Amino acid sequence: MSDYIAPVKEISFVLNELAGLSQVCELPRFEDSSEDVVDAVLEEAGKFASGVLAPLNSVGDNEGAKCVDNAVQETAGFAEAYQQFVEGGWVALPCNPEFGGMGLPESVGMATMEMWNAANISFGLCPMLGQGAIGAIESHASDALKAIYLEKMVSGEWTGTMNLTEPQAGSDLAVVRSKAIPEGDHYLISGTKIFITWGDHQMTDNVVHLVLARTPDAPEGVKGISLFVVPKFLVNDDGSLGERNDAYAVSVEHKLGIHASPTCVMSFGDNGGAVGYLVGEENKGLAYMFTMMNHARLNVGAQGVAMSDRAYQHAVAYANDRVQGKAAGDKEKGTIIRHPDIRRMLMVMRSMTEASRAVCYVASSSFDMAHHGTDEEQRRLANARGELLTPIAKGWSTEISQEITSLGVQIHGGMGFVEETGAAQYLRDARITTIYEGTTGIQANDLIGRKLIRDQGQEFNRLIDEIRATQAEVAALGDEMATIASSLAQGADSLQQVANWVIEHHMDNPQLPGAVAVNFMMAAGTVIGGWLLAKGAVIATAKLAEDESFYSAKIITARFYAEQIMPRADAHVKMAESGSAMTMALADDQF
Amino acid sequence: MSDYIAPVKEISFVLNELAGLSQVCELPRFEDSSEDVVDAVLEEAGKFASGVLAPLNSVGDNEGAKCVDNAVQETAGFAEAYQQFVEGGWVALPCNPEFGGMGLPESVGMATMEMWNAANISFGLCPMLGQGAIGAIESHASDALKAIYLEKMVSGEWTGTMNLTEPQAGSDLAVVRSKAIPEGDHYLISGTKIFITWGDHQMTDNVVHLVLARTPDAPEGVKGISLFVVPKFLVNDDGSLGERNDAYAVSVEHKLGIHASPTCVMSFGDNGGAVGYLVGEENKGLAYMFTMMNHARLNVGAQGVAMSDRAYQHAVAYANDRVQGKAAGDKEKGTIIRHPDIRRMLMVMRSMTEASRAVCYVASSSFDMAHHGTDEEQRRLANARGELLTPIAKGWSTEISQEITSLGVQIHGGMGFVEETGAAQYLRDARITTIYEGTTGIQANDLIGRKLIRDQGQEFNRLIDEIRATQAEVAALGDEMATIASSLAQGADSLQQVANWVIEHHMDNPQLPGAVAVNFMMAAGTVIGGWLLAKGAVIATAKLAEDESFYSAKIITARFYAEQIMPRADAHVKMAESGSAMTMALADDQF
Repeated sequence: MSDYIAPVKEISFVLNELAGLSQVCELPRFEDSSEDVVDAVLEEAGKFASGVLAPLNSVGDNEGAKCVDNAVQETAGFAEAYQQFVEGGWVALPCNPEFGGMGLPESVGMATMEMWNAANISFGLCPMLGQGAIGAIESHASDALKAIYLEKMVSGEWTGTMNLTEPQAGSDLAVVRSKAIPEGDHYLISGTKIFITWGDHQMTDNVVHLVLARTPDAPEGVKGISLFVVPKFLVNDDGSLGERNDAYAVSVEHKLGIHASPTCVMSFGDNGGAVGYLVGEENKGLAYMFTMMNHARLNVGAQGVAMSDRAYQHAVAYANDRVQGKAAGDKEKGTIIRHPDIRRMLMVMRSMTEASRAVCYVASSSFDMAHHGTDEEQRRLANARGELLTPIAKGWSTEISQEITSLGVQIHGGMGFVEETGAAQYLRDARITTIYEGTTGIQANDLIGRKLIRDQGQEFNRLIDEIRATQAEVAALGDEMATIASSLAQGADSLQQVANWVIEHHMDNPQLPGAVAVNFMMAAGTVIGGWLLAKGAVIATAKLAEDESFYSAKIITARFYAEQIMPRADAHVKMAESGSAMTMALADDQF
Repeated sequence: MSDYIAPVKEISFVLNELAGLSQVCELPRFEDSSEDVVDAVLEEAGKFASGVLAPLNSVGDNEGAKCVDNAVQETAGFAEAYQQFVEGGWVALPCNPEFGGMGLPESVGMATMEMWNAANISFGLCPMLGQGAIGAIESHASDALKAIYLEKMVSGEWTGTMNLTEPQAGSDLAVVRSKAIPEGDHYLISGTKIFITWGDHQMTDNVVHLVLARTPDAPEGVKGISLFVVPKFLVNDDGSLGERNDAYAVSVEHKLGIHASPTCVMSFGDNGGAVGYLVGEENKGLAYMFTMMNHARLNVGAQGVAMSDRAYQHAVAYANDRVQGKAAGDKEKGTIIRHPDIRRMLMVMRSMTEASRAVCYVASSSFDMAHHGTDEEQRRLANARGELLTPIAKGWSTEISQEITSLGVQIHGGMGFVEETGAAQYLRDARITTIYEGTTGIQANDLIGRKLIRDQGQEFNRLIDEIRATQAEVAALGDEMATIASSLAQGADSLQQVANWVIEHHMDNPQLPGAVAVNFMMAAGTVIGGWLLAKGAVIATAKLAEDESFYSAKIITARFYAEQIMPRADAHVKMAESGSAMTMALADDQF
């Protein structure tokens, strides 16, 4: 089994050259950050991911988490790794210094998140969900609640969970039924939540659940949902732990992947009611959750990148090791990396992984600028860009990770189908990423509705203009870059064409946006990914002499993507422009 | 969990209207076959698949096959099902009447093979591999060997296996090392074989292994490989079973899918040598295996169709059952089949499944005609067509089954990731189909080298001409079919263009054919699938009044495919035409 090596140089390149980390580090909030500090952090994170988390990945898959007597036992070794993770300050890295955080940019946090997930996605989910819970409390809870919970969550002493889904309420949270009955300074929470990631474990003394529920007179639908903090153990005034709260994991799911991440059925209030504390105001719970949404979705996008990169590294190692047959044009038998089709698959994996990493990091750094920029217009534009890129970063990066992890299996041949090889685990683990935190369909609807149609394509067109500016730069570099330039010109044109078509036709019938959304999103992801690789190729051309091996690979990878990935964009555009008629034409009973 | 319902009407439509079953049934060999007989057979096969095999699919996945003390114990229930399978005459269905077979066309055999595999792919693999062993003996063994083995294998009383792969010899059989030492009227076989499907079990009294090995003075490479019959139990002159042969399953693989199909490591000759009988002549073993290859590959293509169809049926059932949210344009909440993106995914699944079924059945019936036709030129042309379509049927059908089974998971949302739902099993099971019996890369190399370049595109162009003829028929049907007509015109043009480009450029550099082969094959599969759906739409238009629901669905499905699947062909053509330069540009150590 191959080891995971964090691609620190590549990550640093994307952060600095494409995601504008130096501008972010100039903002007052990040005055302690700098390229050097960040590089040192990435190096250390890479070592931790490789040395501590990666070795637990396979054992976690084999043994999984278990639930016995309403308590989850995580895989052996995870508790010790988590303790080291806390001691390393990794939970605190992107958090607010006011509550003990290190205050590094979110985009740097995303880079570490990619590493934790590539090394061990089941482990990575625990701090990832914790970030969501921290964010919800920090943004919306009272100072009293913040004082009790935040420092311990930021340090990692306690973990956090997000309790949204119920059996009847998945993508549609309007039908959440869990109840919250007021009682003194708190509420009594009851109900069943499903798909609760790391809903219980023995790694920390306490687990802080963020729970959506309805108060007795709440209106129906999404406007009657409130958000509560429900700790596993109540917290005394002096900060010590009190009674066990009435909130239990009653089972864990038997899943296709992420076996070591306990996906819990949580039961609240079986013995009278779990004590919960209202976050912010009643009935605003869903809005509060939505403020966490971009962050959570971008992190899932980074998980897609992580799975793709891990699968790529594993496949490269195998292709460099396995001897089979003589490749066309070679005189002697060699390893299978000499075979053109193996190499084609590796290049597809490599180029799409790099493209999706760039899309995710650029989206994340947009929010660094949007949240902490010093100029209002700059913040507004950065926010619009981050909002536009988020569903693409999540939806596209995770969709292509299905293909990339599957190619990873394919490169291993028959051995890829044997679990001991390890390649199949990435395919199984990656499979959840297009589903949780909003399915691909939901991302695509968000993109086409809230991000394209709502502002009539304004931000989208601003992006297209930037693609065209890059195209002009690339074209000026001459013949070697010709296929990149032509693919970008074509990509920008067809993306603008389909965007205009959608804006013009979305009122034709109510099914149209939903029917074309995923193809629109896949086209956008393909072109934007190609644009960012092209920007990277321009920079690499200028820096070629500094490190020929690294920068020439950036150029070749961008060219491969232009020639062999960009044609997909046109196909998706044509599919989208065929509209909704044939999608909707069969009667329900003709399927 | 949904039940499997064999799509008998659809299968009958493809056999009769697209695969020319009536012409096949007119051949002397098939004089007892007719459309009515075949329909009755399909009905019965469908009942058997649904009633006996499908209920064992999930239990087989959960429990798997085990190997203890060099003996494989299959999943509980499989032995009884296999006994019923034998009693139903299902093994014998496509076999030669001379040895007790029912003598139905291979294409009808493929239809039943689709059903067995859709219901329970792990079970289906046992008769599928057995067919290969029967074919090898029937085509190449002496009358004496045939007399001993064939009737019992055709009846299903004994099963058969194919022992090719060794740890160092996967796609490259030139390096097979197993030995065969002559001893009297037989040979003593020794060596280790891996990935041996159904290499052992307790369902029958005997298992007949077909084994590739080298005699002492055999030349190196593929020209020194011989084929042997190695029974698990020796057979006495009176046909009764004798001693246990020195051929044992020593372990089974722990795999991503097909858990109930024991994938064995076989050890021959640990106790002095397994008694083996030479098939045909020494050193011709690989050639003998190759005569089985088309058949085996087509059957794996049918497995792709089977997995796709099962995943589709499962997803339709869930989409018709799960209530979540209100679809755009609907007044009330309904099941998720009302959501445009769910419907888009179902239509992608449905249309590609139908297209791949048509490709596989047409390929199979070409061989019915090639092997049993009465006119030499007709046989030659049918054989060329079958040869051309085989790598596409295998490679393309199984590649798209990865996407289709993954969409099946996606439609289930979070439940799709939970194993109890069953959707994930199809994804796991399907994953092997692009690997065994020659990977997708090997299929594509076969297509581009032996089927396109070798005859300079002659048969390929004959196919393009037929596509253009269908295009003209479709165009004459008017506006409703306009997108089908235009997609076929475009598809035929770009397919011919890329074929000509390959023929012209394949000598440019030795890596080129291998680098572009998979994209060429995917383009060809996409267009040929669209062509067959278009032929179906023409027929459906004429028959619409006979069964409006069925035939209108055929037309809508063909139109959806034309609009939303056919654009992929152009993309693959562009990828192929970008050549090999960027695929080969990175140095091995730059990956």
